[in-house]
Amino acid sequence: MKTLIIVAHPQIENSTTQQFFKEGLAGFIDFTWHPIANEYQIDEEQELLQQADRIIFQFPLYWYSAPALLKQWIDDVFSVNQLDLTNKELGLVVSTGSPAKDFQAGGLEQFTMSEVLRPFEMLANKMKLHYLTPITVFQFAYLNKLEQQHLLIQYQQYVTLTNFDSFDSKIAWFNEILKQKSTDNSELEQIITVLEDNEDARHDLLMDVNQFKQDED
Amino acid sequence: MKTLIIVAHPQIENSTTQQFFKEGLAGFIDFTWHPIANEYQIDEEQELLQQADRIIFQFPLYWYSAPALLKQWIDDVFSVNQLDLTNKELGLVVSTGSPAKDFQAGGLEQFTMSEVLRPFEMLANKMKLHYLTPITVFQFAYLNKLEQQHLLIQYQQYVTLTNFDSFDSKIAWFNEILKQKSTDNSELEQIITVLEDNEDARHDLLMDVNQFKQDED
Repeated sequence: MKTLIIVAHPQIENSTTQQFFKEGLAGFIDFTWHPIANEYQIDEEQELLQQADRIIFQFPLYWYSAPALLKQWIDDVFSVNQLDLTNKELGLVVSTGSPAKDFQAGGLEQFTMSEVLRPFEMLANKMKLHYLTPITVFQFAYLNKLEQQHLLIQYQQYVTLTNFDSFDSKIAWFNEILKQKSTDNSELEQIITVLEDNEDARHDLLMDVNQFKQDED
Repeated sequence: MKTLIIVAHPQIENSTTQQFFKEGLAGFIDFTWHPIANEYQIDEEQELLQQADRIIFQFPLYWYSAPALLKQWIDDVFSVNQLDLTNKELGLVVSTGSPAKDFQAGGLEQFTMSEVLRPFEMLANKMKLHYLTPITVFQFAYLNKLEQQHLLIQYQQYVTLTNFDSFDSKIAWFNEILKQKSTDNSELEQIITVLEDNEDARHDLLMDVNQFKQDED
């Protein structure tokens, strides 16, 4: 799977969040990190979109929407007549300085992030793209190390994993990543063994649960 | 009431819709027609906002959002810390080439125009602006003369009338407009007389309806 990450931030180098994501992709392949340049050729940008299987818009939320530079790029590059993106995927990685609790009925912002991002969902629908559940990063600066690690793994899977929302698929991904890292590290091999044992135990439990359900019917 | 109309269209002179609105305001006062310029001073734009009672963003819908030039202007000019717009009003005049029927569950676009414009509603909430019911112009090119006239009156009231959503207020507005035009025209005076008679009749009917309601209680 080829993933195209359209990064839209006025100062990418100074953005802790964007640098965190960029560094988090070291060692992965099959993705293109594509910051929006000051000048671009529309046909070249369209060619990049055509070549991708998954397109990700990655940006900080400015006034409940994309920064103007991403909107300009979309206004320039997207075209119902000139682009066929049917059955590709559109993902969003959105960061905001507000806390998650603000985005709900009764909260400070009153509306959910799903509603805030509706225009992107509608763009996906119009272009016959599959709209992926967005990743929203709330208040990155307040995340502790463990929360950052969780976010990074979620992001790595979002960029590289075809079926990123399936538990089985995530387990297989972890095993693969650990095996790559464990060639010279017996500690990692032990972790993999534990994970595989856990996975076997989980499957046994699932079979038991299914048996209970059948007995009840 | 002072109204500031922020017009955001890449080619205002070539836009039939924008020229229609611009010409429709001839003869009215207390409004500022303010197309977004290629270059602007942020403090001057902020001063314009501070002086207005009603702020209107007027733009064609591009990819379910504002054109990039309006988004850039908002990103530049709006600021929670530098601007106090408390209790002013925010209106939107949005045009789209799609028909109204597309914007509903099961329709081609799946979501309502209220949902499309949510980010502007949220901006209004954040700035403590009163969010006015937007005017949406669907497929302007297909409107017949009568529909155009209805739209124009709705627009004139949106720009100039404090309480534009009240029937009584609209009637008073019509009488005022007609009186201004009728100084040398006996035909218009007859129209005003008919309207005033109708208005008297409507008030009598309303009293009757209220009497029926009381009798039922």
